[in-house]
Amino acid sequence: MTTRAATLVCDLLGIPGDLHHGPSRRAGAREPWLPRGTVIRNDRQISALGLDELAEIAGRLGLPALEPEWLGGNLLIDGIADFSRLAPGSRLAFGGNWGGKGRFDGGAVLCVEAYNAPCRQAGRAVAAMASDAALEFAFVKAAAGLRGLVLSVDRAGRVAPGDAVIVLPPVTAGQRA
Amino acid sequence: MTTRAATLVCDLLGIPGDLHHGPSRRAGAREPWLPRGTVIRNDRQISALGLDELAEIAGRLGLPALEPEWLGGNLLIDGIADFSRLAPGSRLAFGGNWGGKGRFDGGAVLCVEAYNAPCRQAGRAVAAMASDAALEFAFVKAAAGLRGLVLSVDRAGRVAPGDAVIVLPPVTAGQRA
Repeated sequence: MTTRAATLVCDLLGIPGDLHHGPSRRAGAREPWLPRGTVIRNDRQISALGLDELAEIAGRLGLPALEPEWLGGNLLIDGIADFSRLAPGSRLAFGGNWGGKGRFDGGAVLCVEAYNAPCRQAGRAVAAMASDAALEFAFVKAAAGLRGLVLSVDRAGRVAPGDAVIVLPPVTAGQRA
Repeated sequence: MTTRAATLVCDLLGIPGDLHHGPSRRAGAREPWLPRGTVIRNDRQISALGLDELAEIAGRLGLPALEPEWLGGNLLIDGIADFSRLAPGSRLAFGGNWGGKGRFDGGAVLCVEAYNAPCRQAGRAVAAMASDAALEFAFVKAAAGLRGLVLSVDRAGRVAPGDAVIVLPPVTAGQRA
């Protein structure tokens, strides 16, 4: 069950103690191109939700609010427009600023791995919390494009409520050639 | 020193025995936003070069050829247009096909982490191999946008010369919402 945490301390495998912490995971419905159960790198260490996007999903479902805990989110991010559309390879740097030599002096740096496509499991959780069975499928549809991101840890460190977030774009041939 | 290998066997940390194998690495010139030496996840396990792009760089430098060994490349890929521009989060699946249930039945699956921006170290190697000191800087300029990709291992397995490569696009809000 997901509850609010004062501060997260991330290592290179995620959040110690969290269900999704670890070096690998098993392929499932999200990897229809792989045999079920195939061991793959854990690219789903941490999940993050956009505050505005949660409100948008709630509005589409006619709910007053959608709590991040219902979706098992590890992080709730405010102030980044179209959060779910941040490109894979983007970095989110938490709780710091550019120091004297232009070096980041804060806590954890996380890497955007993928969009977290909405699944029926999340829909079931929302339906249960809102006591409305119809929300199981309605959630999957309403959350399309808004479900947030899965991340891995690029640099170990802390994430605390209220931390500023710096977004670094991915390194691509187009941008830094 | 880089030499041709018959078959690579990748685990989730790269190619065992290779210089870049392992769970983490130290930030350096490629991460100017981090204090030098910061421990970060190893997102540079494997480097891959595009055959056509190497020929293009060689042409720009007036060289008959640019050997992948000079650049320390682990993989040389033929037949993927604009190889260096594959987006982070793309997967390269080696040596298999879609099996009976549409599941990949081949070897290693690698994840595109980033474009491998050309550096002076590679320039020095090229200059030494071609016995032309001026190539150190010329290489960095000529290789802009063409230097290949760095990858991590998504699913452990083999990569053999001549293996077919299937490219899977990244999971984004735009594509799979």
